[in-house]
Parts: sequence; C-alpha cells; structure tokens
Amino acid sequence: ADVKKIAVIAGDGIGPEVVGEALKVLKRTEELFGYQFETEHGLFGGIAIDEKGTPLPQETLDICQNADAVLLGAVGGPKWDNNPKELRPETGLLGIRKALGLFSNIRPANVFDCLKEASTLKPEVLDGTDLIVVRELTGGIYFGEKFRREGEHGTEAVDTCVYNVTEIERIARQGFEIALTRHKKLASVDKANVLETSRLWREVVNRIAVEYPDVELEHVLVDNCAMQLLRRPSSFDVIVTENMFGDIISDEAAMLTGSIGMLSSASLGEGSFGLYEPVHGSAPDIAGQGISNPIATILSVALMFRLTFGYADAAQSIEDAVKSVLDAGHRTGDIAVDKSKAIGTTAMGDLIIAAM
Amino acid sequence: ADVKKIAVIAGDGIGPEVVGEALKVLKRTEELFGYQFETEHGLFGGIAIDEKGTPLPQETLDICQNADAVLLGAVGGPKWDNNPKELRPETGLLGIRKALGLFSNIRPANVFDCLKEASTLKPEVLDGTDLIVVRELTGGIYFGEKFRREGEHGTEAVDTCVYNVTEIERIARQGFEIALTRHKKLASVDKANVLETSRLWREVVNRIAVEYPDVELEHVLVDNCAMQLLRRPSSFDVIVTENMFGDIISDEAAMLTGSIGMLSSASLGEGSFGLYEPVHGSAPDIAGQGISNPIATILSVALMFRLTFGYADAAQSIEDAVKSVLDAGHRTGDIAVDKSKAIGTTAMGDLIIAAM
Ligand SMILES: CC(C)[C@H](C(=O)O)[C@@H](O)C(=O)O
Ligand SMILES: CC(C)[C@H](C(=O)O)[C@@H](O)C(=O)O
Repeated sequence: ADVKKIAVIAGDGIGPEVVGEALKVLKRTEELFGYQFETEHGLFGGIAIDEKGTPLPQETLDICQNADAVLLGAVGGPKWDNNPKELRPETGLLGIRKALGLFSNIRPANVFDCLKEASTLKPEVLDGTDLIVVRELTGGIYFGEKFRREGEHGTEAVDTCVYNVTEIERIARQGFEIALTRHKKLASVDKANVLETSRLWREVVNRIAVEYPDVELEHVLVDNCAMQLLRRPSSFDVIVTENMFGDIISDEAAMLTGSIGMLSSASLGEGSFGLYEPVHGSAPDIAGQGISNPIATILSVALMFRLTFGYADAAQSIEDAVKSVLDAGHRTGDIAVDKSKAIGTTAMGDLIIAAM
Repeated sequence: ADVKKIAVIAGDGIGPEVVGEALKVLKRTEELFGYQFETEHGLFGGIAIDEKGTPLPQETLDICQNADAVLLGAVGGPKWDNNPKELRPETGLLGIRKALGLFSNIRPANVFDCLKEASTLKPEVLDGTDLIVVRELTGGIYFGEKFRREGEHGTEAVDTCVYNVTEIERIARQGFEIALTRHKKLASVDKANVLETSRLWREVVNRIAVEYPDVELEHVLVDNCAMQLLRRPSSFDVIVTENMFGDIISDEAAMLTGSIGMLSSASLGEGSFGLYEPVHGSAPDIAGQGISNPIATILSVALMFRLTFGYADAAQSIEDAVKSVLDAGHRTGDIAVDKSKAIGTTAMGDLIIAAM
C-alpha cells in the first residue's frame, strides 16, 4: 500500500494542542478513505532550543527530508525573543525553508461566512473576497548577505536583496498556474519604480506571461497594493510577490478577512513536497489551557491532501466537516460572539471528525 | 519684513490645479495675517522631462535650495511610465529628497468626520483614529547600491539596504519628539527577526528611548503592523519606520482612514526647511477638468505654516476653514456622496479662502 510519511512538528505554544487535533483528523481519514499515513515527530523552534540547543536540530531536518510532507503547528514565544540570532525560533523557520527548498508560500485569504462579522472591514466591502497570496520564500532580502561595518557615520548595518532569473521564473509560473485554476487574474506586486530586483522581477513576469495568454496580468506597486487590498479586496484573485513584500501583504490580506484564526498555508518546493501550517502563531498567552482553535491546522491537513497527496475526496470531506460544524454554531473562544458558549480545542476537533 | 520664500512645483496631472488653489490661500493669508510670501515656480517630474529632458532640472533644485519651503503638487503619469529610469518622474522625486536632505517624511493619517463613511473600515473600528507615520526618507534600500550581474542562475539583480547609526538616531528622535507633542506613544516598526538593518534600528531606538522616559515605546514587526493597523487603528499614535516599510505602512494607514484625498504630508530636513505635498497622486484621469479636490494641498500649506514657519494662527485658520466648508456640506466629486451636487476645484478653493 502507498503509505504517506508525514513529519509532524508540533512546536511551541498552542502548537502541540492544535496539531493533536489534526492528527485525529489524519486517523479518521485512514478509517474513512483507506489512505495510510505514517507520522514521525520532530522537535523544532523554542522547544528544540531548550532541549537540543538549536531551533532546527539535524534530526528534525532528517525526519522532514524523509517525509512526503510536513505538518507544522507554530513556533516562538517571549521566552526566546531576546536570544541571540542562532538561538531564536525564527532562525529555525528560515533554516527549514531553505534546507527543504520551500520556495513558494501559498496563503489563501478567504472569508468564512460565519466570521464575516469578525472583520474590521464593512461586510459589503468584504463580500466575495477570496484571494491567494503566492509569496517567494527562499530568496530576496531574507537570505542575502547581512553584516555590519564601521562607516563614516558610525556602525552601519547592511542587508542585501538578491533575485536571479531562475528564482523569479519558478515563482511566477507558480502564480500563473494557480491563477489558471481560479479566476485567471494575477496581480504581480513589486516596487519597480525604485528597486532593481523589482525591475528584473517585472521583466521576467512579463516574459512568463506570454506562456499564459488566458491569465489577465496586472502589475501593482507594493504601496498601492497595501491600499487596494483595503479598498477592493474582492477584486484580487492571485497575488504573486517577493519574500519581504509577501510577508507584509499576506498578513494584511489575512487580517482583513477577519478569519485569521482559520487560515491555512502551504510552503512548497519542487515536486509535490510541502510544509503545511496554520497562519496564526503560537499564541503563548493561551497555550496549555485547551481553548485554542484547531481549525486552521485541520484545514492545513486538507490543503496537504489537495496539494501534496492529491486526495481531493478526503480534503473535501474535511472542509465540508469544518463548514458544517461552524454552521451548526459551534465556536472556540477566539471566534465565539458569546464567549460563555465557547467550546475547547478537543471538543472542536471531535465535532469535526464526527462530521467528516 | 520677514518675507518667506516658497518654491512652488506644480508638477503633472492635477498638480497645477490643486496648487493654484493653495496659492490663493497663501495670498489670503498675507491679507489676513500680514505675513509675506514670495513664490518662485520650478518645473519638475513629467513636465520637466518633456521640456528640459530631465525630471529634476538643476534650475528647479536651485529654486528649492534658495527657498524656505517647497510646495509640491503631484508628479507622474502613464505618459512617462515606460521611460528609462533617468527619465522617470519618480527618479526626480528620489533625487529631490536626497539633494535637499529631506530625511523625514511626516504623514498624518486622520479621519475627517464627514468622510468616515468613505472608509472601508467599520465606523466603530475607525473611531478615534489619528496617527502619524514618520518615515525615514533618504536611506535604506531606496538609496543603496543597485546593479545587475551574471550569476549561476542567469542574470541577478541586487539592491542594498544600508542604515547607519546617525541616520537611525535622527529619525528616531524625530519620532520621539512628535510623540511628545501628542499622546506620547511611539511604535517603532522593523523586521528585527530577519534583517540586520532592523536589528541595528531597534538597538538605536532603544538607546534614544532613554532620553524620552515619558514616551511609551513599542516595537512592532512590520508584518504585524500591517495587521494591527487594520485591527486596532485607533490604538496607534506615532509610528516611526525605515524608508521601504514606511512607504507601505503609510499608504495602508492613509487608505484606511477613507480620507486619502484630504491628507497632507511634510518631508523635513535638518532645521526648519521642508517640502509639503498632498498624499494623493497626479490623477491623470481627471486632470484638466477642474474637478479635482484641492483640500489636501491646501492642508499641506497649513502644515508648512506650522512646521516650517511657526505660523500657528494662519495654520489654524486654514484648518478651521476647511472644516467649516465641509461641515456646510460642500464636496468635490471625489468625496461627494451625491456626485450631482459636487463642486469644482476653484469653487472649493474660493469657499475655503472665504471661510478663513
Ligand atoms: C517569523 C518570521 C521569520 C516569518 C517571516 O517573516 O517569514 C513569519 O513572519 C512568516 O511570515 O512566516
Ligand atoms: C513614487 C515613489 C518613488 C514614492 C516612494 O516610494 O517613495 C512614492 O510611493 C511615495 O511614497 O512618495
């Protein structure tokens, strides 16, 4: 039988709780659909710093490299915030992206009807908002040379933003391909009126566009994009952009949906391998209380089924189950209007697997 | 008598129209308050490219350098969008900032009560929103070395982001000083978990903070800031950040107020010299029709009075006049609910000077 190997990285804060519910969903999928999963757990982030002295132990990397996909909870917390760079959870995150070649971060920002009210945007503006940000994840200013030197005006710090044609081509293609499966609109976001990397970006995107005559391409400057997301969020379909702009724009897009506690993400490399994680963070303030919302992590499993395994049936079953549980009025504290009726993490997970 | 010299750069698109109304306000100020202004006009942006073959002619720079302040309309338009870099209006903008040493861009984002409805945010979220973004304007990735080179994976483009201690100190001080005159809250925005320039930024801001014990300082990561602006805009007072992040964050902040057609900005150097301009662009689509909104430019004059000349009385008179004209229900097309009742650019200017 075709057993899929999943590396499971629970991480810090609420990570272990929400991943626990996602594992229940995996198990239920085996029962319902006959698929088979083998999971292997790895330490990562703050807990790995505490137990192994490094945010990304080689052992964890090995587990990931041996797997077909990675499921990640969340990493980080105040405990490690003042650590030196090598001992910070984020360093592990950047390291795992680079080591696994995860050059493409896919962040759907869609509105859950029952959560529309949670958005700070007017409902009529939000109506129909359903976009995906495709963010380049292993290049740009994140990974360029960084250093300090003494200059005329005291110490100076330097970061280098580098992009080559190959890097831009592959993420551009990713953007066009995803647009093809949706409303065939691609907004490429750059700062071509200022940056050389953006000018190269725009040239390459224009060249690749010729291969996708059915996709309507628009170039949007990043400052204008930050505005247009607020003014006309529903007019975007797919946004493709470089690493730093993608970090900002994808978070803005996620927040405006009001559904940030529900959003999943995928980080993909060449081939079908991918790392899946909820968009929300490790929420150390509520960790260990059993009140966190497992839905974003459960939907990350659905995304893994679709994008890495091609298990559309199981993915659909999970997504439908989430919808029906929400439609029935069940809410964890973060999304409950009446907090006194909120249910806990495991109760939510149980309801979802029962509805699958 | 103390005659103030103002360099006037009308620029492109609606620039000349809106600047025309601002000049009427200057004249009215002379009559009402006895101040004296001498204006000298310079070509800049697209029109300078057309007439002088460069977006920033030396003559225009001389006029600015001889003046006490600069009033700028707007530059740019599709006509010049595909020009090579040296022949683009933006290149003039970057050039004038650098040449005049305008290291600090002040962008108030406040909500005009009568325009609250124009925001895509819910009114209750917007309530009390009144923030200022202080953006570093002559450093960072905008002005670092940029080039292309051939690499292993085809052509690569490089941008360099550099900040030195002196640059960070002066903009940080600017942020703290402005916070002192307001609600004494400063949010310093960076990406210290990834960028070396941000780590230096944070160190320097923390060091300067010791000089301002009355200001409450918070460090916010730029991705989180993009989210928090949406979630709790009214909780921000002053935001200080580097050039590229400031470009994105200030536009997001401006748009969420719904009042983008009304917002003014100042770009300041050492001493009292400053360049003042509306936040909105050149709006080539409506240029020459006499329907553009001159209020942001008129309010930029008020800002000039406050920050460069110390003419608080005249500034107040302009701001009150704008408020009373709006309260009386007068609107240009961009801010009118009932477009059929909209008035034109000169009519709006006339009403404001009459109300001063
Ligand atoms: C933690 C940080 C390094 C990371 C990033 O900037 O990529 C995070 O913000 C994200 O978007 O996954
Ligand atoms: C036109 C462009 C170069 C400029 C910038 O990015 O600084 C503009 O967006 C601004 O904010 O004034």
